[in-house]
Amino acid sequence: MAEMGMGKGVTAGKLASNVQKKLTRAQEKVMQKLGKADETRDVAFEEGVINFNKQYTEGSKLQKDLRAYLAAVQTMHESSKNLQECLSDMYEPEWYGKDDVDSIVEDTDVLWTDFHQKLVDNALISMDTYLGQFPDIKSRIAKRDRKLVDYDSARHNHSSTNKGKKGKDGGIKITKPASLLERATPIWAQGILSAHNIAQSNLSRNQAEDELERAQKVFEEINEDLQEELPSLWNSRVGFYVSTFQSMAGFEEKFHKEMGKVSLMT
Amino acid sequence: MAEMGMGKGVTAGKLASNVQKKLTRAQEKVMQKLGKADETRDVAFEEGVINFNKQYTEGSKLQKDLRAYLAAVQTMHESSKNLQECLSDMYEPEWYGKDDVDSIVEDTDVLWTDFHQKLVDNALISMDTYLGQFPDIKSRIAKRDRKLVDYDSARHNHSSTNKGKKGKDGGIKITKPASLLERATPIWAQGILSAHNIAQSNLSRNQAEDELERAQKVFEEINEDLQEELPSLWNSRVGFYVSTFQSMAGFEEKFHKEMGKVSLMT
Repeated sequence: MAEMGMGKGVTAGKLASNVQKKLTRAQEKVMQKLGKADETRDVAFEEGVINFNKQYTEGSKLQKDLRAYLAAVQTMHESSKNLQECLSDMYEPEWYGKDDVDSIVEDTDVLWTDFHQKLVDNALISMDTYLGQFPDIKSRIAKRDRKLVDYDSARHNHSSTNKGKKGKDGGIKITKPASLLERATPIWAQGILSAHNIAQSNLSRNQAEDELERAQKVFEEINEDLQEELPSLWNSRVGFYVSTFQSMAGFEEKFHKEMGKVSLMT
Repeated sequence: MAEMGMGKGVTAGKLASNVQKKLTRAQEKVMQKLGKADETRDVAFEEGVINFNKQYTEGSKLQKDLRAYLAAVQTMHESSKNLQECLSDMYEPEWYGKDDVDSIVEDTDVLWTDFHQKLVDNALISMDTYLGQFPDIKSRIAKRDRKLVDYDSARHNHSSTNKGKKGKDGGIKITKPASLLERATPIWAQGILSAHNIAQSNLSRNQAEDELERAQKVFEEINEDLQEELPSLWNSRVGFYVSTFQSMAGFEEKFHKEMGKVSLMT
């Protein structure tokens, strides 16, 4: 049953590895918060993230307001059409201005439809495209945060294995079970155990070094991409807002100008 | 308790009289429906009532559509303002067109407010005034219907009392209780009773005549007023629809023309 709940290709090993990652990260964050481990910080990047969040919030509000505006355009189009058709239905052929009524009803309907369509095709679609970039970047920022914790964790692991080496002059910081093993070992075998421990320790140092290198590489890759993308996205807002505003103002101007021409005097 | 439920000044006598009126009318309508009593009809007036109902329905629909349109104007004004303000808030002073943004936001807000106000002050108020005439006339048409039934009823009552006079050659159509009374009366008193019955019958004929005269007068008064008012109200719709349509089209034209001038190029 539990396996059915997992995604395709997620093996028990992968799951265990994910759990281990989460535990390691949680441990690292606790150590950082307690001030027992230093945290790699990048103030410029953090500012970039603050800007990103602000930009995402602003953009979402703009999208919401644009959608509300488009809904209002449609409502006004419909209610204006209903009202005009109501008048037109009552208007008898011989009354003054019957032709005006009919042509106004027809012309304004076309203009409203066209106006709404232009707003959807241009403002709304470019708005949606613009905002479509944000969720992916947001999840990559979160991933970068996790990879930074992994990197810090690997760094601390590496530095603690190296500190042992320096402190005891090549001596090994023996873990408790090994120490018990040592005490239980006959004297003739002590030299063999010691050599084994040194080999173990070297292996652990190498592993920590590899892990640090790998964690650093993973972090830097994602970090470099975002270091480039965030400021570029942030700057793109200027052009986007300017062009959104200009195109909307343009469509509105055109719409109103043409509506203004639909006159009783034509 | 029952008295507390009645309107001020409604006495028990008045109530009884109203109940009696309703009973008499119901009886008259039943007789007319059964074809046992002729009904005064005025085809021209009935057509006037059909027109009145049509006009009232049309006007109410127009009022409903106008109100929906006004609500849509307000919604579009608000959503357009929200959207523009949202853009304006994000727009930084050094960006291209900042002055345009601010002036457009301000100008369009003024134009929308003005447009909505003009529609309320003119179209909606004149619409409400026009429709305000209908409920009173509607209730007077209903009153005329009731007074016509009263008149028919009085007419039938009068004709049946007269028919009695003609049919029995001065004889009296004695009601059952009187007939019982007659049978119970000793022979020496029969002459007195007969004279009494003739007097009663004459009184009833006079009453029926008075009643007919009164019912006719009441009916004709209300009928004459309506005969004048209905066609005049019916004709007034032409001017009303034409002026409503023209003033609305005029406000819209002016609004759109001015909105069309609120341009990025100014």
